[in-house]
Amino acid sequence: MINPFFKNNGPFKISDILQQINLDDLKVDNDQEIIDIKDLFTSKKNDITFFHSKKYKDIAKCTKASFCITTEVLKDELPKSCTPLVVENVLVSTSKVTSKFYPSSINDNFDYTARYITETKFKDKVKCGKNVLIGDNVALGSNCSIGHNTIIEQNVSIGDNCLIGSNVIIRNTLINNNVTILDNCVIGKHGFGFFPNNERNLRYPHIGIVIIGENSEIGCGCTVDRGSMSNTVIGKNTFLDNQIHIAHNVKIGENSIIAGQVGIAGSSILGNNVRIGGQAGISGHLTIGNNVEIAGGSGVIKNISDNSKVMGYPAKNIRDFLKDNK
Amino acid sequence: MINPFFKNNGPFKISDILQQINLDDLKVDNDQEIIDIKDLFTSKKNDITFFHSKKYKDIAKCTKASFCITTEVLKDELPKSCTPLVVENVLVSTSKVTSKFYPSSINDNFDYTARYITETKFKDKVKCGKNVLIGDNVALGSNCSIGHNTIIEQNVSIGDNCLIGSNVIIRNTLINNNVTILDNCVIGKHGFGFFPNNERNLRYPHIGIVIIGENSEIGCGCTVDRGSMSNTVIGKNTFLDNQIHIAHNVKIGENSIIAGQVGIAGSSILGNNVRIGGQAGISGHLTIGNNVEIAGGSGVIKNISDNSKVMGYPAKNIRDFLKDNK
Amino acid sequence: MINPFFKNNGPFKISDILQQINLDDLKVDNDQEIIDIKDLFTSKKNDITFFHSKKYKDIAKCTKASFCITTEVLKDELPKSCTPLVVENVLVSTSKVTSKFYPSSINDNFDYTARYITETKFKDKVKCGKNVLIGDNVALGSNCSIGHNTIIEQNVSIGDNCLIGSNVIIRNTLINNNVTILDNCVIGKHGFGFFPNNERNLRYPHIGIVIIGENSEIGCGCTVDRGSMSNTVIGKNTFLDNQIHIAHNVKIGENSIIAGQVGIAGSSILGNNVRIGGQAGISGHLTIGNNVEIAGGSGVIKNISDNSKVMGYPAKNIRDFLKDNK
Repeated sequence: MINPFFKNNGPFKISDILQQINLDDLKVDNDQEIIDIKDLFTSKKNDITFFHSKKYKDIAKCTKASFCITTEVLKDELPKSCTPLVVENVLVSTSKVTSKFYPSSINDNFDYTARYITETKFKDKVKCGKNVLIGDNVALGSNCSIGHNTIIEQNVSIGDNCLIGSNVIIRNTLINNNVTILDNCVIGKHGFGFFPNNERNLRYPHIGIVIIGENSEIGCGCTVDRGSMSNTVIGKNTFLDNQIHIAHNVKIGENSIIAGQVGIAGSSILGNNVRIGGQAGISGHLTIGNNVEIAGGSGVIKNISDNSKVMGYPAKNIRDFLKDNK
Repeated sequence: MINPFFKNNGPFKISDILQQINLDDLKVDNDQEIIDIKDLFTSKKNDITFFHSKKYKDIAKCTKASFCITTEVLKDELPKSCTPLVVENVLVSTSKVTSKFYPSSINDNFDYTARYITETKFKDKVKCGKNVLIGDNVALGSNCSIGHNTIIEQNVSIGDNCLIGSNVIIRNTLINNNVTILDNCVIGKHGFGFFPNNERNLRYPHIGIVIIGENSEIGCGCTVDRGSMSNTVIGKNTFLDNQIHIAHNVKIGENSIIAGQVGIAGSSILGNNVRIGGQAGISGHLTIGNNVEIAGGSGVIKNISDNSKVMGYPAKNIRDFLKDNK
Repeated sequence: MINPFFKNNGPFKISDILQQINLDDLKVDNDQEIIDIKDLFTSKKNDITFFHSKKYKDIAKCTKASFCITTEVLKDELPKSCTPLVVENVLVSTSKVTSKFYPSSINDNFDYTARYITETKFKDKVKCGKNVLIGDNVALGSNCSIGHNTIIEQNVSIGDNCLIGSNVIIRNTLINNNVTILDNCVIGKHGFGFFPNNERNLRYPHIGIVIIGENSEIGCGCTVDRGSMSNTVIGKNTFLDNQIHIAHNVKIGENSIIAGQVGIAGSSILGNNVRIGGQAGISGHLTIGNNVEIAGGSGVIKNISDNSKVMGYPAKNIRDFLKDNK
């Protein structure tokens, strides 16, 4: 059984967790065990969660978590079953607690466990090049090929009939059947997420993974970062050209076509049948509808509704753009 | 003798080819042998060709091919010597037949034939790093060097005095004398060409190669895709900076200078002495004249005539652009 | 003692140097030894320097160099202690002389001296992956890790607690403590600098290095070129995302954040606390102040003063841009 997600090092006693965020003095049952850290919606009894913005008030009211990292202002929204843990900076404290549960999710050190595939059980299962390395907790389907010098690090599951190129690095990724990943890609690295600090930035954990749908293709030299608290997803039958950058938490739909050197910033969500021309950029935290066409070189800084065709920077209706730029 | 082009698996009996495109019922001499698939202009007797657009009517009238994949509407333009093969989608059928002649031109699986250079006849001929791999059908000139972990796959010819960096991957490429290719490049991969299909996209064959003229230089992390039915060409004494993407069928002239992160989309043709600033993009199927200067960051979406200087997105005369953007 | 700078092959007799630039006939003390080539300001007695633009008149008047490559027009600005060497093209002649002192600074051939780390004194000092290569003149601090297939070439100094990813190539670089360099980067390659020539471009030497400040991070697939006559610098606690290109001689300040696919052209200088959005580009030879914010996708072609926020191409005040593009 493969699990591409990070290993939870818990449970931990609540007293150990409080110490991590400088709340040692808080009076609680010190021996109570905390199982996991999750968002407000998915957390259960004996989990810890976090609540940092009014936006999530309605979800906070119903959380099942036993503890919640939050602020003085927000704490009264929580149900009685959830003990508030009031801190100065919710995200920094959440980051510290997440690091305790998932210590290996912060840095992207190379995988010490990786061994030559010829020394593993996979040696006769896949067609593979020279110098291929495989980490712990990897699953490979049937009829796959893996190119020279490629490194499949820990926590990777690859389906059937997948073609992995040469010089590829993959970690914390779930790859479905019939997927092609071309040379020099880096898939599953942590995202560009951290708390800026003038002495030394504080990296926050990335406990999400990358999920690649069946029949998809990733071109040469692409980077697809894994998610922080959610996953980065590439839908089925979606093709990416060369040198594309997909940031953490991005969701791309099905049957989409993305040309070379496109960049999609963190947490944006794209629908199905989206077509994006070369070198276009999409800002973070946007929603792009189904059947959208984005012309090459465009810079998208607003949400785009279904069936739109846009162009320019900032991207607008393509007919308006071409009229304005005759 | 090196031949960087794909190996033709033909000849095939016409009956085998008709089966491929669901025309088994057509009455022809089933045993007739077909030698190759080529375009309307270059095909000869006993070749098969394709004709999918009125644009090529005049060439179609004179084709020497014995068979032609085409449509009900276009078939009457063909000469008597050429039997029309009427299909619904000319390009899809052409793709299927091309795949039959050139099966290895569709996917870019890593090269199974690659061996450590130390086990080949080249071991004393070039100055080479650790872990260098060489595929079948490779020729190396004198006085070359090849860096660590570099993979020269099948069908590559390298001239004299060439410097190939480390972590480079090259296939289906003809490199002339005095060429430098820097670290982490991928040269000769198939282009981003396929027929979109909502269940599973259909890749079409790329039987072209990459040709790099003498005295040229390719910077770090560049990708230069090989052509589909024609070749991708970089002229002599042309220098490319880092992280540039050159798509399939692109032709770049001589003495040109292309700065970092530029992208040139498929089938565009550039003249000589062209200068392109960093991050500029050129759309597909365009013609850019001689002595053209394109400012960094520009997006070119129209043909550009000789001696022009352009800037902006869409790129226009540089003086007009600067005046409009004071 | 590690010195990441290029080795000076001098001293040379002045007669050997004059021959290099076709000034054999000049009457000087042929046996006088020349120690180094430096700029007007830093050169000392028995050094050779160069002077090619009126801009540097005031510095030229005070140079301590014994010889100066210059033009007929400029030569009279030099002090009596400095013998003018009048040539047609100062930069080409300077390049030739620099090549004589620093022959290995012109091409970026792979490092022939690199050996497997397991065969070196470092084998027990760092946590390292498979197939790691180390060149001559390398220093590694304590508590570092180096990923699989990574090549640390000649003239590299790495501080304590540094994490180097897999498939990384580094040369001529000084890395301070607590630096992270992610997978597939190429750091310290020569810049994209040469004298264009219609038969064969003439590369000029790059004798500078790359300096990376402590606590900084470089994302996957970045290229950071070394300087030509000065250094390329990334300040402390500055974070770079994936697929960024930093050209030669660029100086980036401290505590800066640069998002994916940004490109910074040669010799531009950035202040501290600069934030740059994804895919933005900065032209060469610009000065960007402290606390500047540059929106994603922008193209900067002018200097930017402290505390500005800019957007667009050409980049202008962000409020003006958004108003003009409603």
